[in-house]
Amino acid sequence: MKEYIQQNKERFFEELFSLLRIPSVSAKAEHKPDMYACAGRLCELLLEAGADSASLWETAGHPVVFGQKTMDPEFKTVLVYGHYDVQPPEPLEKWRTDPFEPVIAPDATGRDAIWGRGANDDKGQLFMHIKAFEYLVRTGQLKHNVKFIFEGEEEIGSPSLPAWIKAHKKMLAADICLVSDTTMISEKVPSINCGMRGLSYLEVKVVGPNKDLHSGHYGGAVANPIQVLCEMISTLIGPDGRVTVPGFYDKVVELSRADRRMLARAPFDLKEYKEFLDIDAVRGEKGYTTLERTGIRPCLDVCGIWGGYTGEGAKTVLPSEAHAKISMRLVPNQRSSEITRLFARHFKAIAPKCVKVEVTPCEGGDGFLIPISSSAYKAASRAMSEVYGIEPVPARGGGSIAVLAEVQKILGIDPLLMGFGLERDTIHSPNESYLLKQFFNGMESIALFYKYW
Amino acid sequence: MKEYIQQNKERFFEELFSLLRIPSVSAKAEHKPDMYACAGRLCELLLEAGADSASLWETAGHPVVFGQKTMDPEFKTVLVYGHYDVQPPEPLEKWRTDPFEPVIAPDATGRDAIWGRGANDDKGQLFMHIKAFEYLVRTGQLKHNVKFIFEGEEEIGSPSLPAWIKAHKKMLAADICLVSDTTMISEKVPSINCGMRGLSYLEVKVVGPNKDLHSGHYGGAVANPIQVLCEMISTLIGPDGRVTVPGFYDKVVELSRADRRMLARAPFDLKEYKEFLDIDAVRGEKGYTTLERTGIRPCLDVCGIWGGYTGEGAKTVLPSEAHAKISMRLVPNQRSSEITRLFARHFKAIAPKCVKVEVTPCEGGDGFLIPISSSAYKAASRAMSEVYGIEPVPARGGGSIAVLAEVQKILGIDPLLMGFGLERDTIHSPNESYLLKQFFNGMESIALFYKYW
Repeated sequence: MKEYIQQNKERFFEELFSLLRIPSVSAKAEHKPDMYACAGRLCELLLEAGADSASLWETAGHPVVFGQKTMDPEFKTVLVYGHYDVQPPEPLEKWRTDPFEPVIAPDATGRDAIWGRGANDDKGQLFMHIKAFEYLVRTGQLKHNVKFIFEGEEEIGSPSLPAWIKAHKKMLAADICLVSDTTMISEKVPSINCGMRGLSYLEVKVVGPNKDLHSGHYGGAVANPIQVLCEMISTLIGPDGRVTVPGFYDKVVELSRADRRMLARAPFDLKEYKEFLDIDAVRGEKGYTTLERTGIRPCLDVCGIWGGYTGEGAKTVLPSEAHAKISMRLVPNQRSSEITRLFARHFKAIAPKCVKVEVTPCEGGDGFLIPISSSAYKAASRAMSEVYGIEPVPARGGGSIAVLAEVQKILGIDPLLMGFGLERDTIHSPNESYLLKQFFNGMESIALFYKYW
Repeated sequence: MKEYIQQNKERFFEELFSLLRIPSVSAKAEHKPDMYACAGRLCELLLEAGADSASLWETAGHPVVFGQKTMDPEFKTVLVYGHYDVQPPEPLEKWRTDPFEPVIAPDATGRDAIWGRGANDDKGQLFMHIKAFEYLVRTGQLKHNVKFIFEGEEEIGSPSLPAWIKAHKKMLAADICLVSDTTMISEKVPSINCGMRGLSYLEVKVVGPNKDLHSGHYGGAVANPIQVLCEMISTLIGPDGRVTVPGFYDKVVELSRADRRMLARAPFDLKEYKEFLDIDAVRGEKGYTTLERTGIRPCLDVCGIWGGYTGEGAKTVLPSEAHAKISMRLVPNQRSSEITRLFARHFKAIAPKCVKVEVTPCEGGDGFLIPISSSAYKAASRAMSEVYGIEPVPARGGGSIAVLAEVQKILGIDPLLMGFGLERDTIHSPNESYLLKQFFNGMESIALFYKYW
């Protein structure tokens, strides 16, 4: 496929950029028209690439794109999953280029990359699948049936997709669910994810007095909801780095020594890691390594906090309310719905009498594991070995793709996570980018996967 | 003066509204032109009311308005202090009327009030002095020399005024500094402030990783700056309600039992107080009553907090930074500059190694006490007794007027705080208002003060 990429890459960029220019931010209602525009553009791209059909399906939320090409009922069927929605681009002032005006430019190491929101996550990665498919179709090498499902709600926890999948089980029948929406350990150490964490995401609100107060007239006598929220949050993680919500760890599977040894084979340099993030020390659950903390252990993070006066200068106010967004990453056997319930109960229980507390669940999904002994995993491994010159390492991803656990349950097929992102891509952050080299290597690896499976 | 008010009140409203319509928010650079507009309008109003001269004086920050009328060098001189700057109106969505389009409308109890930012603090209150002065001039009753000083930086801690006062000591020479910028205990219990708290206001910033991170890829392994900020803030107040900054209480004067008994004479109904704020419990320093906590004890409040994603929906991010604005209210003998230094040192000392911390002082001022045995205090007390039918109670105010301690030091004269605000006015908050009854009673009381002093 190398040659095909060289001959067509300018067209590839143009097509991908047409997707990246659409601000398909699923979290914000104002972007509803953009979701339809992006889904529509994906249908066009699928048809141009050689799909028999491609169409937009309504759901309770943002539309799903479904396309397919049937070669022969006897062939194995690949279901490609991706998502066309993106994270909000904020904070905008930290972007060096417009998040929705993609460009190709060198990064700090001098290598060309695509810059823009979604360059990697997941428009750039799902686009590789469309192009590998196009290549196989146009060169007459496609020996599989292929189905594509691109959703518009991954970044908000895929609230509508499970019901849609249940309603279209027959149409979606396949042998494997192929996904590029994750990272590799490093450029030099390709890896294939064999598990992902689940997620429970909630918003909390602490209400003190029924109006903002003058901090001079009331300060010292009336509980400050920001102070109380800080106190409550500070107790959510204990001195041992463990989440203090009662029952949080009850279902967590402790890995065997052998399993932990296998994971420890993945190369990791703590000094480089700290330098990359410009931090003097890491912090996490006692008794686990950094890779274990993000791979096999659950955690709790405050993703956002706000309350009182946050503008320029000094305003002396004792505010009425304080808010926070809290995410918990879960590991297999922890159920998202149960953890959400446990958290809500605990957070209300620890509220002092001087405030009122509200807890609103936002999204969630379970974690999952993938067997590395399957023929599909082996084909992916062989494909990536050929492109990278090294056998990929099986790894556990810290992120969450909420819907894949559902795919596994409803369709009875395993996901296969061939992700080509890198830590440097800073997805979900300002200046998201995707190295051209990974973009091209990804397409090649995907095309070879079809060859070897 | 009652009759004069009745005859002229429509004109009074019109004139006051012309001040309230100008959004003179000192904290925001964009309002610079509004500061000049408001100062200019005040000069006009002073001249129309009968001042010999009134002019706008440049400072390092917003301009000062100075006006005067000299009757006879042998007469006593009153220096009236007020401020024409206002607090930012945010959160805008909580205002029932436009904060800068004042209206007269009844409140929940059916009594007419002026609604708008600055209706009380301090445009409404300083305006009473201009009108009482106008009345005395026009009716030939003025038997004092009067000087007016209206600053535009009170809400940001009066950074420029002390230097300006030092530079114009002779011009400002007076026997008393008369101020209406505080509240009374209640409509039925008029009070005169005999002390105010000082202030130390700082902004803090906690920096973790050098960029926002994907909370799935890093969550559990990298310290979250919001979590760390919450932990640090939660330790600033101990379980006994005391501020934990080392040295914070070293210079605080403990009041004698007799003094505390005198303060306890002020009527206070905890049930009403909690109902007014819609809280189930108060909270503060152990061993002190609510009135003592705001009057004679120092405290610490988080006035604002922000970090990470605060928009609609769920964004899974481990943010790079978290911020907070922190105010400390101080009592006499605590020096603002020293407390600011102690806080900064302590906050840096308690930061864990996994984050970096910045502390930026924003504003400050010392607290002060006023003798209640002076002839001026007695004249004010007699004036208010006549208007309210009850002798006013001496009280300690929880708020801060940073510059008055400086006035006391530089000019060697005591402030006299005849404040006519009420708790219900919700100054610094949305829907600030000022009861017409208090507005009129204030003018009458001020006119009578000149009569009895």
